[in-house]
Amino acid sequence: MQTIEVDVGHARYPITIGSGLLANRELVRGQIPGADLMIVTNTTVAPLYLPKLRAALEGRNIAECILPDGEQHKTLQTAGWVFDALVGKKLNRDATVLALGGGVIGDIAGFAAACYQRGVGHVQIPTTLLAQVDSSVGGKTAVNHSGGKNLIGAFHQPLAVLADTDTLTTLPDRELKAGLAEVIKYGCIWDPLFSDWLERSLGRLLGRDEDALTYAISRSCEIKATIVSQDERERGLRAILNFGHTFGHAIEAATAYERYLHGEAVALGMIIAADFSRRMGLIDGAVQERLTGLVRAAGLPTEMPKIGAARALELMRMDKKVLSGRLRLVLLEKLGRGVVVAKYPEELLTAVLNEHFE
Amino acid sequence: MQTIEVDVGHARYPITIGSGLLANRELVRGQIPGADLMIVTNTTVAPLYLPKLRAALEGRNIAECILPDGEQHKTLQTAGWVFDALVGKKLNRDATVLALGGGVIGDIAGFAAACYQRGVGHVQIPTTLLAQVDSSVGGKTAVNHSGGKNLIGAFHQPLAVLADTDTLTTLPDRELKAGLAEVIKYGCIWDPLFSDWLERSLGRLLGRDEDALTYAISRSCEIKATIVSQDERERGLRAILNFGHTFGHAIEAATAYERYLHGEAVALGMIIAADFSRRMGLIDGAVQERLTGLVRAAGLPTEMPKIGAARALELMRMDKKVLSGRLRLVLLEKLGRGVVVAKYPEELLTAVLNEHFE
Repeated sequence: MQTIEVDVGHARYPITIGSGLLANRELVRGQIPGADLMIVTNTTVAPLYLPKLRAALEGRNIAECILPDGEQHKTLQTAGWVFDALVGKKLNRDATVLALGGGVIGDIAGFAAACYQRGVGHVQIPTTLLAQVDSSVGGKTAVNHSGGKNLIGAFHQPLAVLADTDTLTTLPDRELKAGLAEVIKYGCIWDPLFSDWLERSLGRLLGRDEDALTYAISRSCEIKATIVSQDERERGLRAILNFGHTFGHAIEAATAYERYLHGEAVALGMIIAADFSRRMGLIDGAVQERLTGLVRAAGLPTEMPKIGAARALELMRMDKKVLSGRLRLVLLEKLGRGVVVAKYPEELLTAVLNEHFE
Repeated sequence: MQTIEVDVGHARYPITIGSGLLANRELVRGQIPGADLMIVTNTTVAPLYLPKLRAALEGRNIAECILPDGEQHKTLQTAGWVFDALVGKKLNRDATVLALGGGVIGDIAGFAAACYQRGVGHVQIPTTLLAQVDSSVGGKTAVNHSGGKNLIGAFHQPLAVLADTDTLTTLPDRELKAGLAEVIKYGCIWDPLFSDWLERSLGRLLGRDEDALTYAISRSCEIKATIVSQDERERGLRAILNFGHTFGHAIEAATAYERYLHGEAVALGMIIAADFSRRMGLIDGAVQERLTGLVRAAGLPTEMPKIGAARALELMRMDKKVLSGRLRLVLLEKLGRGVVVAKYPEELLTAVLNEHFE
């Protein structure tokens, strides 16, 4: 069991990572405050882990809100159902919302907690690799709009994150691989030694070796905690966590959030961002090939959907990194260093989008 | 023209109060930053003041979102229309939302600004007395839920507040009186000399004397700014601004937000809160009578709707001041001092609700 601290100044909380956390009643009860709890989860995760969580919290007043599974349900309407459940149970400002599930559940439940009564506490209990290494940490919450991903949301830090690696045993292979995309991202933008380790360890990770998974999750959370602690509200540095995401979000939106898992779209986005970085002269072909190799070795898609360059550009213009009409891109300066770039030739962007999406 | 500063630590902004503000292009342009603007207003206010505001901002990229008028439209669905408008115009994180209207518009537009792209700037341009003295100041934004008022919202401070007293010339008498309820509140909870002044000045205020209105607005904003600057997130002191509101919100919800204007419900709520304060031995009958006299002199209702004590209690249990299952009440310790009271006999609450609502 490992603990990593996130400290954004006005809030501070632990990420606990390890095996058997949900069965550890003392830990669960210690990390989750409040007499009144609302567990938000989905139809897939509920039968697997809801009884265990309820058992660990025996004696508390527990309500639940079970949502349909899938990114296409991450909408304002679904957040409305969580509000209905909270009001229906007459929960007050001292209630705690628990997000039990993957990134979609974490984002919806976190957003609902941010807005209910202008903010109640929430605890993230991520059950997918992607949520454990990325979305449950750092306080970004949101729902999607048909016009773009995560356009409606709030910064709302959790009170705690509980990442039980045992929940990964029931994770479908496709979801495991999608989570690895974000793990690969951390090496690319921050830590070349972690990229080296990943090249050696992807086989063990895909084989669900517990030690390898625990190390990958811990190192990812450490990197994210370091970045978020320096820049909670994404005034600068934090934007590098979006490496691959601007292109990836366009892919997700253009395919109605149904064809790709978020991590798969990010993998494709990272391939494009690496290509763009090379064409800008920031990295050489060898680095680009190492990134593509990692994506391929993780069993992630490398073939681009033909969504059209114009549609992709239109969707990218809704990215939250657009400032003063200028779309900033997260690129690689070298393996292990992500940078936000505002100045680049517009024609290069058009050329890259044409090449990959037409 | 008068300026009052609000300073909550992480944000600081001016409230400008006076005649002819909207016609003062230099002022309007100076107070409203950004190239891309979204004006949120309603069908009543738009024909009156939208052209004037647009003219003052000539040269900016201005979009508009015109909502139906009325508290019953302050819902998550309506906030969704504002998001649709923002996405539809492809506005980015550096856009500014302008709330042109009364409290309902200010609350919806402020909430939409708080959540769009996890937070964009907004400027409040209140056009009702109630919004000018209360809701436009302090950063509370929200929409209602059928189960209770302002249950979905955010703390999101505006970049500026522009209160043009000329807009009050088109305000219906009933709305003017509703605004006076909040003005009376400030005297009761904070400033007995202001209560004295109000007793002498209600006639002039109802006659729309410009000097009297400007003084009433300025003093109200000063008091609110003082309180909010000490306690933005309502950890303690700020709750006294809710004097009359816990009972008032129950009255509004029980009558589907249609029968009473917010200020009218607050007036009724203050009468009950004063009665409760007297029965608790905090104030004597003379103070209670002065408050009731002010409400009556302002032309506000004093007769209670028979919504039933049980229904009122159920709705009050959803109040955001409930902590650990305990409903805290804002009472008067004397004229000019509001206090939050957590300890009181439950039977007394039942008796008071029975007396007023049965």
